[in-house]
Amino acid sequence: MTTLIQQLQQKIDNKTKPLGALGELETLALQIGHIQNTLTPQLSNPTILVFAADHGMAMEGVSAFPTEVTAQMVHNFLQGGAAINVFCQQHDMAIQVIDAGVNTDFPMHPHLINAKIAKGTKNYLQQPAMTEIELNQCFEKSHDIVENVVQQGCNIIGFGEMGIGNTSSASLIMSQLCDIPLEKCVGRGTGLNDEQLQHKLSRLTQAQQHHKNVTSAKQVLATWGGFEIAQMCGAMLAAYEKNMILMIDGFIASAAFLVAKHIEPTIQDNAIFCHLSDEQGHQLLLNYLKAKPLLQLGMRLGEGTGCAVAYPIINSAVTFLNQMASFDSAGVSQC
Amino acid sequence: MTTLIQQLQQKIDNKTKPLGALGELETLALQIGHIQNTLTPQLSNPTILVFAADHGMAMEGVSAFPTEVTAQMVHNFLQGGAAINVFCQQHDMAIQVIDAGVNTDFPMHPHLINAKIAKGTKNYLQQPAMTEIELNQCFEKSHDIVENVVQQGCNIIGFGEMGIGNTSSASLIMSQLCDIPLEKCVGRGTGLNDEQLQHKLSRLTQAQQHHKNVTSAKQVLATWGGFEIAQMCGAMLAAYEKNMILMIDGFIASAAFLVAKHIEPTIQDNAIFCHLSDEQGHQLLLNYLKAKPLLQLGMRLGEGTGCAVAYPIINSAVTFLNQMASFDSAGVSQC
Repeated sequence: MTTLIQQLQQKIDNKTKPLGALGELETLALQIGHIQNTLTPQLSNPTILVFAADHGMAMEGVSAFPTEVTAQMVHNFLQGGAAINVFCQQHDMAIQVIDAGVNTDFPMHPHLINAKIAKGTKNYLQQPAMTEIELNQCFEKSHDIVENVVQQGCNIIGFGEMGIGNTSSASLIMSQLCDIPLEKCVGRGTGLNDEQLQHKLSRLTQAQQHHKNVTSAKQVLATWGGFEIAQMCGAMLAAYEKNMILMIDGFIASAAFLVAKHIEPTIQDNAIFCHLSDEQGHQLLLNYLKAKPLLQLGMRLGEGTGCAVAYPIINSAVTFLNQMASFDSAGVSQC
Repeated sequence: MTTLIQQLQQKIDNKTKPLGALGELETLALQIGHIQNTLTPQLSNPTILVFAADHGMAMEGVSAFPTEVTAQMVHNFLQGGAAINVFCQQHDMAIQVIDAGVNTDFPMHPHLINAKIAKGTKNYLQQPAMTEIELNQCFEKSHDIVENVVQQGCNIIGFGEMGIGNTSSASLIMSQLCDIPLEKCVGRGTGLNDEQLQHKLSRLTQAQQHHKNVTSAKQVLATWGGFEIAQMCGAMLAAYEKNMILMIDGFIASAAFLVAKHIEPTIQDNAIFCHLSDEQGHQLLLNYLKAKPLLQLGMRLGEGTGCAVAYPIINSAVTFLNQMASFDSAGVSQC
């Protein structure tokens, strides 16, 4: 009896093209067919969730941008002016913006979900960024958000974020869980110069030493995470539980995924790594995960932009699998 | 007075994102704005031209597939079953199939253009693949085809091909014009094994030695080219003359481009290299051209599939340039 994987491979190999000639599109087609347990997978209602939150650590001068930019960018998302908006519109993808913990009160908006835990995390130079209770709230709220997206018929979901200071969190999480020296995990974020980068590294080194006995994935997340990172992690776990396809964006989303993978090791079966961020550390993190990114466009914007830009390629994989003729049906000779 | 390039860069830098954070999308936006001489470029009626032809050399056992597959695949294109069809349909791109010299008489079809020069080239182990007159016919016919596409409102055009045996032509053209040893230019094509690859290399070495005094780009093209490669080259030159955006596919399209660049050195200003083919030689050819491919998906199918799969990313570049908010318009603080 042939397995579904074998049947999928056979279907791919019988398409009118040389064996393997569609490269990673074939790998994707196989993965997606496997996830959906069918020879005719479908992508429906692709949705990007953008989680936003502020970071107590941001006041330590670890970012090139002032902290108020987190809230300003949420307004920009709601007005449709950010990069993620225009890419989602281009590809007819839905977008939902989640206030996971921004230091502002927002008015009601149809695309804004209020999942605020607090107005920013604590400064982890002094204490853990969040309590265990807050972390659990992050997981619960993001679980509900994903439930709701599923009910809207979505089976492929991308995870984006906005939070001034959040490359710092991602670097600390990565360093701790991958056991990679911090200086290899810390990068320029939104655009630090050499001196600022040194300052960031020095502050993060302090922050790492301050909590050096933290080991479990959840503790690591609570200690250095942002609320947006914790909610992304929870949303990834919930999406996997629902057997959705997970589109993973850049450095910060990959750090959230890293925590999710420590909690649920098989989650990577459903994950597509959409692009290689230009942020130092992402390549090493992907190496650690043994993950190959679809795109390498030198992007480092976050917001889920890598997911949105990569989506049509994922769709191409499903499209060729479903729509291309076979050698038989087209009357083409095989080699 | 600021130049258009400076104005474009300023427009890109004022978008609500860190400087440079959209990576190669920014490079593309700059290039396309420069080509169209505007701050608000537009892509209209994207079209893929698929040139098909047979090769006299193919009877020497240099391909994994039998020669009749060229004609069979043309039928497949016309029936909409090939990879290029499904990707063009996915992205609402037009497709035109050109019989540049297939060894079959086709019935009339609305998507088929009859530009047949002859029923395949001559075997270049014995004589030049085509005469100078035939080469000029290729250039004239492809010029008319592009004129017609322009009249349909297209300003961005992708070049694809189908022709059993045409990686052999591309390898010889590349080796001669780049002065790179043939063994580095010859690859497995549609799927040769080690022994077949050695056979191919040995035959192509003979073919190279047989015509070793050929030097000018046009002579090189006539000696080893296929009619589809010559027509692609002519179509690229015509598209550049019309100031269109040129999407260059994989190994064979890049070899056609190489000839076009020898004829018209500034043509690369308008060219976007859509992907890195898995065919050995393409990376070296792109290095020679100092060209960076947009995608690296391990594809090696031809037909213009790399162009079609990359098109939404090119479109993303134009979309962000036109639609994203600026720091000013969105009220976001800069760093």
